[in-house]
Amino acid sequence: LDRLRALAGVAACARVESANTFPSDAGIASSAAAFAALTLAGAAALRLDLDERQLTILTRHGGSGSACRSIPTGYVEWVVPEGPFDAARWDTESYAASLAAPEHWALADVVAVVDAGAKKIGSAENHQLAVTSAYFPTRLAEIPARMAATRTAIATRDFELLGTTMEADAVSMHVVCMTSTPPSFYWNSGTLAVIHAVRAWRAEGLQSYFTIDAGPNVHVICAAADRDEVERRLRALPGVQFTIANNAGAGARVVG
Amino acid sequence: LDRLRALAGVAACARVESANTFPSDAGIASSAAAFAALTLAGAAALRLDLDERQLTILTRHGGSGSACRSIPTGYVEWVVPEGPFDAARWDTESYAASLAAPEHWALADVVAVVDAGAKKIGSAENHQLAVTSAYFPTRLAEIPARMAATRTAIATRDFELLGTTMEADAVSMHVVCMTSTPPSFYWNSGTLAVIHAVRAWRAEGLQSYFTIDAGPNVHVICAAADRDEVERRLRALPGVQFTIANNAGAGARVVG
Repeated sequence: LDRLRALAGVAACARVESANTFPSDAGIASSAAAFAALTLAGAAALRLDLDERQLTILTRHGGSGSACRSIPTGYVEWVVPEGPFDAARWDTESYAASLAAPEHWALADVVAVVDAGAKKIGSAENHQLAVTSAYFPTRLAEIPARMAATRTAIATRDFELLGTTMEADAVSMHVVCMTSTPPSFYWNSGTLAVIHAVRAWRAEGLQSYFTIDAGPNVHVICAAADRDEVERRLRALPGVQFTIANNAGAGARVVG
Repeated sequence: LDRLRALAGVAACARVESANTFPSDAGIASSAAAFAALTLAGAAALRLDLDERQLTILTRHGGSGSACRSIPTGYVEWVVPEGPFDAARWDTESYAASLAAPEHWALADVVAVVDAGAKKIGSAENHQLAVTSAYFPTRLAEIPARMAATRTAIATRDFELLGTTMEADAVSMHVVCMTSTPPSFYWNSGTLAVIHAVRAWRAEGLQSYFTIDAGPNVHVICAAADRDEVERRLRALPGVQFTIANNAGAGARVVG
């Protein structure tokens, strides 16, 4: 809000009300949506004339990379400057942009909640630990090819390419956590049950792929047409407390 | 047996009887003990005068690295030639030797069996897949320092050093599996339950550390004095079917 006040040249205070329809701090990017909403609401309240890219830059300042991705519509890329991390350059040049509208590809994300409690290691602390992992440089080196594969997969609606790239990236992030000093193990019993189930379903012909944020809960991505079936199967697994399903969404918007 | 026949210059056939007191092919090195026993029994039957190092070299030919470690007594190192893998050199120069007698350090190994079934991916296939992992070169580079830490830990009976080194090495091996193409996930729900339990017990003061072979079952290493307590706690965990406990053992010997 301070950054918005500075941009608008005002010192007004704001009452912030934030509500989530799903669990917070469980590693399913709940804060991302809240920060995106807060930035957009603040900009609207102050009648700032900002384009989408400026809004995503502001959202990244306030929240995180995940947060800036919640501003644009549909399939969104978080664009970061080339070269090693540079806080000043990222503050002005790192933004999010839509790659495709939600209608481009009818996919669903079914979150299998295996632990609704707050995560034990915050994302910020986790980012600090990452550099202690011997695998971290390898992960960084892999990212450009994964980003390119993901863009191609979205452009051509290649679900197998999207899915295998997404799974490899999720595993690689958790590998960095498990090999840091000290190591962190976000996965729990339920996480592994979902991973094995998704792989078995795929072997039987039900196309679905997993991804896992910095927590134990698993996002299962499938065709929108398979969403109910995936949700039904996930709920039957031991360790799955409940599920939350969403299709590809429109970006952040002012509702009131 | 062919190699023993060649060494002894005989063509005799042998009746082989092998019995295990624990599950086979479950990733707890059951075949290692059997191959060590077979080599020793064969050499004894043919009255070959072999020293321990020669026996371990022969065992590695017939079985695996794990197998050659089952010949010497107590705490054993599998010694491999320096430099990149070279099948011919390893056949003549790779052997196992005792670092310390079982009496040197009263430790126990409690195996938490979370899946008594045969493993889905054999060790040989797994070794072939390892080279497809981007993490494999990092793992190889880490091994000399881990070996040195393990030797120091055994020599000085430093349980924390042994335990943290052992856990990091186990995780690193599974990380290579999970990041190969295609990835393999040996861990199941029970594996993760044991990992989290062991870490929680340690935080409370019960010193125990995990290691995991190429399967889902978990070896929990603890002081021999804590063995019954660790076994009791492991049996109470969801997913643990039964446990097998052993202290550090004497090497292979002819019993009949």
